Amino acid sequence: MKPNNMLKNDLFLKALKGETVTRPPVWMMRQAGRYLPDFMKIKAKYDFFTRCQTPELATEITIMPIDQVGPDAAILFCDILVVLQAMQIPVEMRDGTGPWIPNPIRSVQDVEKIIIPNINEHLGYVMDAIKMTTKELNHRVPLIGFAGSPWTLLCYAVQGKGSRTFDKAKEFCFSQPQAAHTLLQKITDTTIAYLKEKIKSGVHVVQLFDSWGGILSPEDYQLFSWNYLQQIVTALKDHAPVIVFGKGCWFALNEMGRSGASAIGVDWTCSARNARYLSGGQITLQGNFDPTRLLSPIPEIKSSVHKMINEFGKDKYIVNLGHGILPNIPVDHAKAFVDAVKEYSV
Amino acid sequence: MKPNNMLKNDLFLKALKGETVTRPPVWMMRQAGRYLPDFMKIKAKYDFFTRCQTPELATEITIMPIDQVGPDAAILFCDILVVLQAMQIPVEMRDGTGPWIPNPIRSVQDVEKIIIPNINEHLGYVMDAIKMTTKELNHRVPLIGFAGSPWTLLCYAVQGKGSRTFDKAKEFCFSQPQAAHTLLQKITDTTIAYLKEKIKSGVHVVQLFDSWGGILSPEDYQLFSWNYLQQIVTALKDHAPVIVFGKGCWFALNEMGRSGASAIGVDWTCSARNARYLSGGQITLQGNFDPTRLLSPIPEIKSSVHKMINEFGKDKYIVNLGHGILPNIPVDHAKAFVDAVKEYSV
Repeated sequence: MKPNNMLKNDLFLKALKGETVTRPPVWMMRQAGRYLPDFMKIKAKYDFFTRCQTPELATEITIMPIDQVGPDAAILFCDILVVLQAMQIPVEMRDGTGPWIPNPIRSVQDVEKIIIPNINEHLGYVMDAIKMTTKELNHRVPLIGFAGSPWTLLCYAVQGKGSRTFDKAKEFCFSQPQAAHTLLQKITDTTIAYLKEKIKSGVHVVQLFDSWGGILSPEDYQLFSWNYLQQIVTALKDHAPVIVFGKGCWFALNEMGRSGASAIGVDWTCSARNARYLSGGQITLQGNFDPTRLLSPIPEIKSSVHKMINEFGKDKYIVNLGHGILPNIPVDHAKAFVDAVKEYSV
Repeated sequence: MKPNNMLKNDLFLKALKGETVTRPPVWMMRQAGRYLPDFMKIKAKYDFFTRCQTPELATEITIMPIDQVGPDAAILFCDILVVLQAMQIPVEMRDGTGPWIPNPIRSVQDVEKIIIPNINEHLGYVMDAIKMTTKELNHRVPLIGFAGSPWTLLCYAVQGKGSRTFDKAKEFCFSQPQAAHTLLQKITDTTIAYLKEKIKSGVHVVQLFDSWGGILSPEDYQLFSWNYLQQIVTALKDHAPVIVFGKGCWFALNEMGRSGASAIGVDWTCSARNARYLSGGQITLQGNFDPTRLLSPIPEIKSSVHKMINEFGKDKYIVNLGHGILPNIPVDHAKAFVDAVKEYSV
């Protein structure tokens, strides 16, 4: 791994290494997003994938919360579905509906047609955005790059859109397991190449989002999700610290704790005590404030954050939400969340 | 509790008492539903609430899976939202959208207007359906009556429709907690009266569905869901066995195990081992086959069911799905699930 001694704020990297800190670092999933009025102005002018694909816009959006809310890490504005696009599976973002895949994957033939892309050819714009953001950040805080888990990407590729149950995706896996595994391996190989290139371009840390892991039984999770996530962690862990976040994946915390990842993200259904116990007690944990709880009055947010830090402990801990921040959160509530961490003292 | 010595098949009641059985009983959540072609014929002719409110139709639908699939218990066809309707909160069922509340509850004033209804006046049709079904069943299997948890009903009453995050319902609770608690108490009082009347009318067992408990943190679950569920269990447990099922509520299995309920339903993210451990190891468990796994080939369904029984153990166990059966499950796959249990031998 590269030395990061240029960084003015290395709290996040210290927590990922398990080093003792004066206070835990804090950032928020989706911190560069729709609760920020200035983001909404950009959103009104440019469509979703234009924002992702234009390095100037991605940079501006990524840095916005650093200036306005003050977290200890930046996360590059992008989307997990750009990996499917690079694999020549067209993805649209529709207002109201969300992700939309006009030709969902449903057969062995569909899977066979899918390519493992040349990353710089198809995702060069992400690398340009990383370089531009790194320059603009000017060593203020580290930069995180992210990718979806192969299982989560399969969910969208097969279902064709968001879903509560992803029944078509699960049907595909359970009735055509071989086709599913071929698809998962292609996504895995692409993701490894993609994240390696991101690290080369300048991200300090990578986070893997398994947004839909929690709809599988522990056994099916192992088969269809974890096997592939583990490959990615193994391939990347010597290049940069890896954070694995699986929404609803409390039942897999043990595997995650032994995976070689630097940290595990947990959602708010998992108490600090359960998270430490289930993950083996050694690994750095990240989470887990209920994003809706940011609608509580500010004094209540602050006391809840302090209580949460006391429960997780200040070391081997990264303060975050248990999922992405919601569009209806007032900016001063988001800022209160971050400030509460900065005001924390043992 | 009433003696049930007239029942020809009392396997389900034995398992609820924790008695030793030759094989565990089996039924399926939503077993009277859209995967049955004969149900679809009734659905084509009568709208959703007409089916609930017409005792002849509810009886026919309830008995259909007993004749066609053969589970060890019947569950009265109805809906959790009839309780809101009885409280004079209009609820519609819209094709494609699902439940629709034209005037969602959003303020103290809204809550104050809500009545605690006279059960026989507003839900008499449910009691008629129970009496008719009991007669038609002719002691073949016991009959289950159900209700939603107060929290889950609040979710719909406030959000106004189904949702992945029920953000408006949570916002209501976190910003107007007193109004939320008044509403939850009114729903609780209504539910207790409703279920007592159901037991008087002839159901042998009641099941409480906390479909949306899993979106709360353990602490908020205690505050906004469990406190009210516990009141219901306490009020009913001496009248009939109570089953509590909370989707995604693995973190509350300990409270549930100590609540006085006769059994706890678990979803498929919770392994048998975790479920026994978290619930304290004494209480009867019910679950937890992933409904989508009924799309697997029949021999695989059968071997997975046998494996599941071996993992839970044949005693203090009721075989079920981990959530409702899906509309796209072939009837012979549902039947294979039930048959696999009947073919089970130690």
